[in-house]
Amino acid sequence: MSMMTWEGVQIQGAAGIIEKLASLPFKRVQHKTTTVDAQPSLPGVKAIIVMVTGQLLVDEETKPQQFSQTFHLVEDKGYFVYNDIFRLNYA
Amino acid sequence: MSMMTWEGVQIQGAAGIIEKLASLPFKRVQHKTTTVDAQPSLPGVKAIIVMVTGQLLVDEETKPQQFSQTFHLVEDKGYFVYNDIFRLNYA
Repeated sequence: MSMMTWEGVQIQGAAGIIEKLASLPFKRVQHKTTTVDAQPSLPGVKAIIVMVTGQLLVDEETKPQQFSQTFHLVEDKGYFVYNDIFRLNYA
Repeated sequence: MSMMTWEGVQIQGAAGIIEKLASLPFKRVQHKTTTVDAQPSLPGVKAIIVMVTGQLLVDEETKPQQFSQTFHLVEDKGYFVYNDIFRLNYA
């Protein structure tokens, strides 16, 4: 079952994740990816860990916020996001 | 075989990783962890994905740098670091 940790809040399952994302208090978010690194995550398993860092801009804000996000993509009739960890990076 | 991606440079194997870490151009680094999030990374496998964000201070520098790091810990007679992805977060 897919898992997401969003700013420390843990959610399990696609329905809960969609509900959480829909509840976020903004209408639009623009992502600007700065770095993307990927590694195979286990021998003998079709799975990839990806860490993304970058900046995002919410609604009409003009000051971008740094973020970091880790995805774990696992093959099961196509790849799906098994793990998703998102954090804003406060200075 | 353990993998590390350090600022986009990919290294495989414990010997190479130790050599890389020893070659870094500073003597001391202090880490201050801001967030740690962990999730089990696969059903039926003893493995954990951890994403850490925080600040680090190198040698005599006084301005901390933001960093993000993802670890994948896999059980094999004790847990070891199978994946390690490190990035500084530039604004």
